[in-house]
Amino acid sequence: MPGDPRPIGVFDSGMGGLTVLKALVARLPHERFIYLGDTARLPYGTKSAETVQAYALQATRLLLDHGVKMLVIACNTASAVSLYLLQEAWQKVPVIGVIEPGARAGVAATRNRRIAVIATEGTIKGGAYARAIRKLMSDAEIVQRPCQVFVALAEEGWTQSPATLAAAEHYLGPLFRSPSAPDTLVLGCTHFPVLAGVIRETIGGAVALVDSAETTSLAVAEALARAGLESGAGASGEAAMRFFATDSPERFARVGAIFLGREIDPASVELVDLRPV
Amino acid sequence: MPGDPRPIGVFDSGMGGLTVLKALVARLPHERFIYLGDTARLPYGTKSAETVQAYALQATRLLLDHGVKMLVIACNTASAVSLYLLQEAWQKVPVIGVIEPGARAGVAATRNRRIAVIATEGTIKGGAYARAIRKLMSDAEIVQRPCQVFVALAEEGWTQSPATLAAAEHYLGPLFRSPSAPDTLVLGCTHFPVLAGVIRETIGGAVALVDSAETTSLAVAEALARAGLESGAGASGEAAMRFFATDSPERFARVGAIFLGREIDPASVELVDLRPV
Repeated sequence: MPGDPRPIGVFDSGMGGLTVLKALVARLPHERFIYLGDTARLPYGTKSAETVQAYALQATRLLLDHGVKMLVIACNTASAVSLYLLQEAWQKVPVIGVIEPGARAGVAATRNRRIAVIATEGTIKGGAYARAIRKLMSDAEIVQRPCQVFVALAEEGWTQSPATLAAAEHYLGPLFRSPSAPDTLVLGCTHFPVLAGVIRETIGGAVALVDSAETTSLAVAEALARAGLESGAGASGEAAMRFFATDSPERFARVGAIFLGREIDPASVELVDLRPV
Repeated sequence: MPGDPRPIGVFDSGMGGLTVLKALVARLPHERFIYLGDTARLPYGTKSAETVQAYALQATRLLLDHGVKMLVIACNTASAVSLYLLQEAWQKVPVIGVIEPGARAGVAATRNRRIAVIATEGTIKGGAYARAIRKLMSDAEIVQRPCQVFVALAEEGWTQSPATLAAAEHYLGPLFRSPSAPDTLVLGCTHFPVLAGVIRETIGGAVALVDSAETTSLAVAEALARAGLESGAGASGEAAMRFFATDSPERFARVGAIFLGREIDPASVELVDLRPV
């Protein structure tokens, strides 16, 4: 079979979504990817649903203009408030978010039916994780917690610092020491996987940690197969990546390396301008 | 004398500038103020100079459309990269930034001619504080330090938490324990005054802490007098405040209360849209 050589579009408010891209590249080495970070307007996590919806429409249109065969919304906040809107607006390509895969993995992992979700303010406020979990496990006990400071700590690269430990203790310590502690914690923000070590130290080894980057890459692989959109085995070697950002390529490359887990050449990051749709 | 009853426009990327408004209201109880927080696009501190300049132009134009007699750029990043641009663009009203007053106060406070400046990445990178200090004290030793995580900690209201103490130790502890420690620390971001207690704990009691909110309110009072723009003593009682935000009035009111030091009614915050100039 010849396969479909078109790239997959990955959209995030900034660099956090590179944890999703990292998982995608590892799982789908024959695909090409275009990643767009809306760094001029990040973060989305503290902004209203209407504002995030407008931004997400503009960003995904630019990716469609570059001929992508599928859209991955690698931003929890944007997934939470704009997935259905984007699916409706762009019917010619599949649109995959990070919420549903994360919820599914959380439900699969829990034994005591108690699931905690940590995310940005915007994601928690929209309640999308709670709805997605409840759809799959109607009697689940769900604890949702906005962890806004984690975003800044992850962007600063403080993956092991005392400040990060103190923040983790503040947000999660009491909850996971309580007798009715959840046995599963969903990392509902793409920034959080880089803090997984410190989070694990705080919540203990027995709690299942669900990283929506992993689960989303699986969902994308399934969706590609289902729609017959795979690139075909011909294109061997490493997945190709192209980067767009709406602000400073230098900062994108520097902070992005934390999340992608490898160096990014600032010269490979293209500055783009997003316009009202 | 009848005085000039027009309001003073105060512009910030978000809520941090409310520390400046608080100082202005305390010093100028007879004035009226319009405060605009560009919350849909905050923070500015991690964005490029070009992007911040475009945003600052849009925001100040809206304030001018509301008939302000003076513009206060209560955002260090915007002051650092756009003050001269704004002064050139809007010649009919005085435009005051926070950098020059902060630098002046730092120079007045130091005895050992060693001044530290902490601010956002964008402010430090632009080097505006170092230039402003050197203009007044050419042989000053200046240490500049971006403290990005402080912004998130202040917005979370963690003014006394262990995470904030750990972050302060990371950013400032070694510097202020060194034999050649500065004797003056300029808080070059409007978010930082709410963390002054923890910062003081870290750097010790002997260091002069310069809060640019205070020094800017003094500069505004002087500029009003110089230009004959004072409201006149007739309008007695408390200064009147009006709030505009480009995103969620609810969040503006909630987080803003931390910086203004008093409750803000969400219903008093007007949602506005900024358009390209």
